[in-house]
Amino acid sequence: MDTVEIKTLIGQLARLDCHSMYLNDFLLTWEKSDDEIKATFLAAEILHELRRKNISCRIFDSGLGVSLFRDQSTRTRFSFASACNLLGIAVQDLDEGKSQVAHGETVRETANMVSFMTDVIGIRDDMYIGKGNAYMREVAEAVKQGYQEGILEQRPTLVNLQCDIDHPTQSMSDMLHLIKSCGGEENLKGKKIAMTWAYSPSYGKPLSVPQGVIGLMTRFGMDVFLAHPSGYEVMPDVEEVARRNAADAGGRFITTHSMAEAFEGAHFVYPKSWAPFAAMQKRTDLFGQGDHDGIKNLEKELLAQNAGHKDWECTDQLMATTRNGNALYMHCLPADITGVSCTAGEVAAGVFDRYRGPLYMQASYKPYIIAAMILLSKVQSPADQLANLLEAGRPRMC
Amino acid sequence: MDTVEIKTLIGQLARLDCHSMYLNDFLLTWEKSDDEIKATFLAAEILHELRRKNISCRIFDSGLGVSLFRDQSTRTRFSFASACNLLGIAVQDLDEGKSQVAHGETVRETANMVSFMTDVIGIRDDMYIGKGNAYMREVAEAVKQGYQEGILEQRPTLVNLQCDIDHPTQSMSDMLHLIKSCGGEENLKGKKIAMTWAYSPSYGKPLSVPQGVIGLMTRFGMDVFLAHPSGYEVMPDVEEVARRNAADAGGRFITTHSMAEAFEGAHFVYPKSWAPFAAMQKRTDLFGQGDHDGIKNLEKELLAQNAGHKDWECTDQLMATTRNGNALYMHCLPADITGVSCTAGEVAAGVFDRYRGPLYMQASYKPYIIAAMILLSKVQSPADQLANLLEAGRPRMC
Amino acid sequence: MDTVEIKTLIGQLARLDCHSMYLNDFLLTWEKSDDEIKATFLAAEILHELRRKNISCRIFDSGLGVSLFRDQSTRTRFSFASACNLLGIAVQDLDEGKSQVAHGETVRETANMVSFMTDVIGIRDDMYIGKGNAYMREVAEAVKQGYQEGILEQRPTLVNLQCDIDHPTQSMSDMLHLIKSCGGEENLKGKKIAMTWAYSPSYGKPLSVPQGVIGLMTRFGMDVFLAHPSGYEVMPDVEEVARRNAADAGGRFITTHSMAEAFEGAHFVYPKSWAPFAAMQKRTDLFGQGDHDGIKNLEKELLAQNAGHKDWECTDQLMATTRNGNALYMHCLPADITGVSCTAGEVAAGVFDRYRGPLYMQASYKPYIIAAMILLSKVQSPADQLANLLEAGRPRMC
Repeated sequence: MDTVEIKTLIGQLARLDCHSMYLNDFLLTWEKSDDEIKATFLAAEILHELRRKNISCRIFDSGLGVSLFRDQSTRTRFSFASACNLLGIAVQDLDEGKSQVAHGETVRETANMVSFMTDVIGIRDDMYIGKGNAYMREVAEAVKQGYQEGILEQRPTLVNLQCDIDHPTQSMSDMLHLIKSCGGEENLKGKKIAMTWAYSPSYGKPLSVPQGVIGLMTRFGMDVFLAHPSGYEVMPDVEEVARRNAADAGGRFITTHSMAEAFEGAHFVYPKSWAPFAAMQKRTDLFGQGDHDGIKNLEKELLAQNAGHKDWECTDQLMATTRNGNALYMHCLPADITGVSCTAGEVAAGVFDRYRGPLYMQASYKPYIIAAMILLSKVQSPADQLANLLEAGRPRMC
Repeated sequence: MDTVEIKTLIGQLARLDCHSMYLNDFLLTWEKSDDEIKATFLAAEILHELRRKNISCRIFDSGLGVSLFRDQSTRTRFSFASACNLLGIAVQDLDEGKSQVAHGETVRETANMVSFMTDVIGIRDDMYIGKGNAYMREVAEAVKQGYQEGILEQRPTLVNLQCDIDHPTQSMSDMLHLIKSCGGEENLKGKKIAMTWAYSPSYGKPLSVPQGVIGLMTRFGMDVFLAHPSGYEVMPDVEEVARRNAADAGGRFITTHSMAEAFEGAHFVYPKSWAPFAAMQKRTDLFGQGDHDGIKNLEKELLAQNAGHKDWECTDQLMATTRNGNALYMHCLPADITGVSCTAGEVAAGVFDRYRGPLYMQASYKPYIIAAMILLSKVQSPADQLANLLEAGRPRMC
Repeated sequence: MDTVEIKTLIGQLARLDCHSMYLNDFLLTWEKSDDEIKATFLAAEILHELRRKNISCRIFDSGLGVSLFRDQSTRTRFSFASACNLLGIAVQDLDEGKSQVAHGETVRETANMVSFMTDVIGIRDDMYIGKGNAYMREVAEAVKQGYQEGILEQRPTLVNLQCDIDHPTQSMSDMLHLIKSCGGEENLKGKKIAMTWAYSPSYGKPLSVPQGVIGLMTRFGMDVFLAHPSGYEVMPDVEEVARRNAADAGGRFITTHSMAEAFEGAHFVYPKSWAPFAAMQKRTDLFGQGDHDGIKNLEKELLAQNAGHKDWECTDQLMATTRNGNALYMHCLPADITGVSCTAGEVAAGVFDRYRGPLYMQASYKPYIIAAMILLSKVQSPADQLANLLEAGRPRMC
């Protein structure tokens, strides 16, 4: 992309109303206006293009990014680290060790204690229903208050790196991938996407990916199908969000228990395992009661329940039923690939193999999405700031 | 603070004699002259003001800060990371894993091996009496020698992030908090501060906080009361330092076994649990003998001993006896708060709640104190350097 | 060194053909041409001199360096961190946790997922024969392909931080130490170096150090003696490399079972423990079969075998037989020092003590060697780039 084209993107960003993102957090995509969602995509693209032209995107001379991962992470961890580094922020991991950080007083205190020079806090907390997002809001509220009271010199922005409800850095990367694949958001209208459950030999995968996808992709006038076996429902509240979005955007949100129906004629397919919402809620309750035997029994039940749906696999046959037989296959990775990482999984090896390039590309947007989220929350006039970076043209690498 | 006021502070710093801090370490506050202590406060304040004005304090283009935590840490870890980052230094953690680093040959070797491009080494080693500070001196000596022999290109400065004797980054932050609360060091003379033991259900909290406080705060002409139940004495050597300081500064250092006496009319109170020095020494000996049963028994004894002093709690009633009933309540955090983090603890929830703002502020000085310690040890003409930063006015964040 | 001398070194670098290093990896020294080896030494020296003159070597404004240590490391970890930091790259550790990263699909995927903004990947994987180097090639191939397919914006260069075959950052540092000790590469011709086995109470030390040494040092026209007890052979392939190198360079590669013969008249001695190649291969097979009892038995056998060779110690008596009784004693550290870190070890305390300065110096080159490897792989015209840094003269520390 040449300089003129980048300036065009910057011009588009300048015309969007994203002033509420300034000194704010990014917790759920559906809390953001259409302009704010678009601004995030645009800022991500502009940062990407600047870096491609070897232009420094560094807006911070110093500053800390605190990362707190309450669940394992490789790609999101590196995406957050990359985003911070791109902007000039040093990452410092908050390692809670094996101790449970108590709620109440301690959250507020810890949040402030690590934030005296912190510009951004990224948290993954997706293990327990009703907990992760609530925890993030507690942290965000604590540092906001600390900032207002003059304890913190700057307002650290909170970026949700996956909670029990949403996984915005994932769904936004997925969406940007779709937009780029179709040559623009305007081409998505009326297209069909199948977010479907798929079999996995593992247990308890978070709901935040399918929820994030239906919560976001229903905003673009697409026909969004959510397919899963009976009993694998996602959070009713998020389904409600999806229904409302679809109505507003002139698209459809359809739930079905048939993978075939969802794939039929689809332009995009996103087959992925997740745990039933009700079971996850039960698990959270058992955990709260300290009932470890109960958790073990539940785990066994769920694995047995999963095993009854091994036919929910993204095979070549199913792919053949999609639009022109070549729907774009999507996954947040890592996928459970039949015959590669497990004996029976979410996707046939042949399908996965054919789409490896696009899948890696899908993942490649995440660092830029995170960087855009940070930029939009930290900079009052992001379009001007990006124009300045382009103008300055300081090389990322000499 | 406007530019003229910052220049005034820089002018004050220029007039202090702190040339011995250059290429030196910060291990115990009482090894530093009054001018050096003042210079540290001034440099911390100037750095703070520069950052508040969004002026970069970066004096390093590259350089490593090695952190070694032999005990858990959140706030000091982040303070060290923040301080290094503010100055342009990247933190690299030295993780000793589960292996005990042997003394003798290995300390000298490891210290040099991690220091080829290291500008500062921060160490927390507070677990065993007679060990932590000694270890720091061994490391400091090793890298000093490595520098003199031309093995290291630069002299890494050692910052004591808490040892068995002192916790200078804490006590200096506490002190700066006092100075700011009173509107200047000159207003401290004759004021009363109560450093008192308080009950905690936990065991073996380090002595370095009360020792650091009495070792530093006796230098400002205050009446420093050290109160604790019989049997909870601190190191006699540090009490001796406090006595000498008080005499030199025209203040008083008074020990008592009555919390009420210490609180009576106090301007500042610092109630906090610690372990008896004699017990900690016994524990170190048992550890040296590998007598784990002995350690367990000692632990039980100490908890029982603690439990006899649950009345050592900072309550509203006690606070009411302080100067105008509104002494400044201080704590290094986290505090054991009755009814919040434990059933009976160091402080009543109501007291803690009322002072949360000031407590967080107290903690907020630590990153700047550490940055000042690094600056003063690395830069030959710190006042000139800070004037240059102000003059350059490079934004911390664009 | 003054500016004119640095310019002379830059001029020498400019005349070397190292264009194949650009966008390439550093896996085995014997895959590199003589010009490329020389270029690495020169670039390391120039970077060293620039830093000595307080001139910034920062060529990256942002960028990540991924480090993956599958075996414990202190000095190489800090060397890698120092090298990255010197050039402006932030280190992000890839912690595989306790899980074995599966081969095949996953390696390719993980390699790409952590590399979206990654400029360099440093890996230590030295535990199993036939595995470490192969793994590195798999990672390098994956990111190379990712770069070619446009998934990665830049080609991350892979630096071998020790594998089962070679330890190039170590052997290159060792070699630079030799060159500097002799006042130039041209003075090495005809000199004798003894790479000898030495007794250690521990078990299973990697073969990569002796292999790296004989694979590199045979290229300089020296007489390279490899001495070890019968049964402690290194990989035959590497011996073959050494033989070929020696023939090409007009030197000799001689193997012997006598430590005395190797030391006799030597200019340089490098006594160090390692595990027998055949035993390591057996261990790898047992590991592959999950035969943990077999591994334990093998371990016992090997320790017993070692114990039969306690006379393989670098003593004062042996040192006396070297050239003028003052051969340069070398070690990659940490050494097993008799009476200091063990009752009987690789070297007498007196010998080690006398050579501590040179030993630390030997280690000091590693950060610069790694930085040179990164520079040569990332920068198309390294001599021009270094000249620019010298010209700009931006201070490393204000």
